[in-house]
Amino acid sequence: MILPAVPWLDRADEARLRALIDGKAKPLGALGRIEDLAVQLALIAGRPDPTADRAELLVFGADHGLTASGVSAYPSEVTAAMVATLLAGGACANAFARAVGAAVTVVDAGVAAELAAHPGLVDAKVRRGTRNAATEPALTPEEVGEALARGAAIADAAADRADVLLLGEIGIGNSACAALILHRLGPAPLADCVGMGAGHDAAGLARKRAALEQAAARSDATAPLDVLAQFGGLEIAMMAGAAIGAAAGRRPVLVDGFIGGAAALAAIRLRPAVRDYCVFSHRSAERGHALMLAAMEARPLLDLDLRLGEGTGALLALPLLRAACGLLTGVASLDDVLAGRL
Amino acid sequence: MILPAVPWLDRADEARLRALIDGKAKPLGALGRIEDLAVQLALIAGRPDPTADRAELLVFGADHGLTASGVSAYPSEVTAAMVATLLAGGACANAFARAVGAAVTVVDAGVAAELAAHPGLVDAKVRRGTRNAATEPALTPEEVGEALARGAAIADAAADRADVLLLGEIGIGNSACAALILHRLGPAPLADCVGMGAGHDAAGLARKRAALEQAAARSDATAPLDVLAQFGGLEIAMMAGAAIGAAAGRRPVLVDGFIGGAAALAAIRLRPAVRDYCVFSHRSAERGHALMLAAMEARPLLDLDLRLGEGTGALLALPLLRAACGLLTGVASLDDVLAGRL
Repeated sequence: MILPAVPWLDRADEARLRALIDGKAKPLGALGRIEDLAVQLALIAGRPDPTADRAELLVFGADHGLTASGVSAYPSEVTAAMVATLLAGGACANAFARAVGAAVTVVDAGVAAELAAHPGLVDAKVRRGTRNAATEPALTPEEVGEALARGAAIADAAADRADVLLLGEIGIGNSACAALILHRLGPAPLADCVGMGAGHDAAGLARKRAALEQAAARSDATAPLDVLAQFGGLEIAMMAGAAIGAAAGRRPVLVDGFIGGAAALAAIRLRPAVRDYCVFSHRSAERGHALMLAAMEARPLLDLDLRLGEGTGALLALPLLRAACGLLTGVASLDDVLAGRL
Repeated sequence: MILPAVPWLDRADEARLRALIDGKAKPLGALGRIEDLAVQLALIAGRPDPTADRAELLVFGADHGLTASGVSAYPSEVTAAMVATLLAGGACANAFARAVGAAVTVVDAGVAAELAAHPGLVDAKVRRGTRNAATEPALTPEEVGEALARGAAIADAAADRADVLLLGEIGIGNSACAALILHRLGPAPLADCVGMGAGHDAAGLARKRAALEQAAARSDATAPLDVLAQFGGLEIAMMAGAAIGAAAGRRPVLVDGFIGGAAALAAIRLRPAVRDYCVFSHRSAERGHALMLAAMEARPLLDLDLRLGEGTGALLALPLLRAACGLLTGVASLDDVLAGRL
C-alpha cells in the first residue's frame, strides 16, 4: 500500500495572518472561532486569500458483517437503499448540500449488493461488506490497504475540482465499528465508546455491547492498520485514506460526526499531520463522540444534537468556512475605514 | 404610535409536522435541533414547505449620547464610518452575507451625522443620536414611538421581498444601552449586564459601569416603552419595531447577539408572541448575553465566541434555516426508500 506523506502545516505565517485579521474593520478578536478558522484555512492553502467556494461531499458506503450479530436496529439492506436515495437526491445530505451549495459524490467502498452504474457513483468496492468482526477479522491487511489507497486516490482527484472536501458515510452497523476503533485508537474503555447509533431499545443496545465485547476479546490490536483489519469497516478505512489524500493535496477536510471521527482518528494515527487539515464540524449526540474528539484534541464548530451521518453535520459547517474565507478576502482594514478610504 | 398585533403561532399542526419529519429517510430524531427549527419555520409560514431562500439582513445604525460619558473605547464617529463601510460592501457583515447568500440593507435609525443618499441605505433617522442617558432621558416617548413604527414599516416592506429577516446593528456605545435594557426588562442586576462590548481596558470598563449606574439611578423605569425612552437607543427601538413587523408579516426573525437580543427582548415585552417568530442565532461572548437569553427562554443555534454585531452571527445561522427547510421539502420518506420508490 502506498499512502501519500502529509507534511505538518508551516506555522511561520501564522503571526502575519493574525495581524492581517486584527487589522480588519472589527473589534480585536470579535469574530472568535471564525478568526481561528480563517488562519487554519489560509495556512492549509498556503496563501492569505483561501476560498471554500467549491465544496464536494464524498459519501462512502459499505456494509458490516457485525450486523449478523445484531449491532444495528436496521438490516444491512438499508445501506444499499440509502445509497440509491443519495444518488436520487432524496437523502438528508442531498437536501443539506443543496441548501449550502456543495456537490455530492457517492463512493461504493463495500456495499453488500451489486449497485447499478450511476454518474454520481464511484465504484471503489473492495468487497461486499466486511466479515463479522465478532467472530473473525473483518478485513485482510490487503483489503485495508486497498481501501486506504482508493480513498486517497479519490480525494486526490476530488481535490482538483474542490477547494474543500467533506467526508460522510452510510453503512448500517458502522457506529459499532467506530466504537471499536475509538476503543483501540483513542484509546478509551469500550463501554464508554458504545452508544445508540441510529437507535436501539435496551435489548438492542445489550446485543450491540455483547457483540463488541466479543470482537474486542478476539484481538488485542492497537496499531491503526491492525485495528482496521480486525474491526473494519471499508467505508471508514476509505474515508481515512481520503482524509490523508485530501491533506496531501492541501485541502481542508471537514469531518462529520462519530463515524467520520473514527476515520479521522485512524488517518491521524497513520499520518499525524492530517490533524492540521481537519476541521471538526459538530459534536454528535452519539455517546463516545466527546471521547473521540478529546483523543484528537478537537473542538467542533457546531453542537446541534445531530446523529445522522452522511456528512450532514459537515455540510452544516461548510458556510462557516466560507465566512472565514470572506473575513480574509472581503473585509476592509480598520485603517481604511477610519481614513475614509473605501 | 401604531404597532401591528402579533398572534401566537397556532400549534395545531405541530404533531402533523413532527410526524412528517419522523417519516423522513433518517433515524428518528437524528437531526436534533434542525428538526425543531423545521417545525418552527413551517408553523411560522403556515405550510409544510417553508423556504428561507430569500434572506435580507437589515442593519440599523444609530449613535448614543452615552458615549459622552466614555462608555465605549471608540468615538461616536466610528458609527458613520462603519455605515459607509457597510454601504461599500467592506464590513464583516457584507463578507458573511456574500458567503451565505443574503441581501444587506442599511437603515439610518439615528446616526449623529448627515449621511449621503445611497441605494442600499434607508433614511429613517429619528434624530441625530440619543441624548446622554447618564444625565437625562435618551429619547422622548414620541421618538421611541417613531423608531418602533418605522422599524415595523421597514420590516413589513422587507417581508415582501424576503422569506426570512435578519436583524443587525451598528452603533458605538450600544452594548451600554443594551445592558440597561436587559437590567430593566430581564430584569437582571446591572453589574451582571455590563460587559466588554467592543473592548475595554480596566479603566474603560470602570467608566462604563459608572455611567450606567448613573443612568440607572436617574430612573426606575421598567415598562418597555419607558425603558427605551430613558436609555435608548434608536437602532435598538427600531430593531424591536422591525421584529414586531416581521412577526406580524409571518416571517422568521433571525436575532443576532447581545444588542439584537436587547431589541428582541423589548419586542417580546411589547408583543409577547414575537417570541414564537424569533430564531436565536448565537451565544455571544459578551457578558450578560446568557442572562438575556435566559430572560427569553432562548437556546441559540451557534456558540462561536462572536461579539461583533452587524448581524454577523445571524448570517452564520442562516444556512441552518435553509437546511431545516430542505429537510421538509427535499428529503424522501423512509417508506419510499425501503420500498425502492425514489
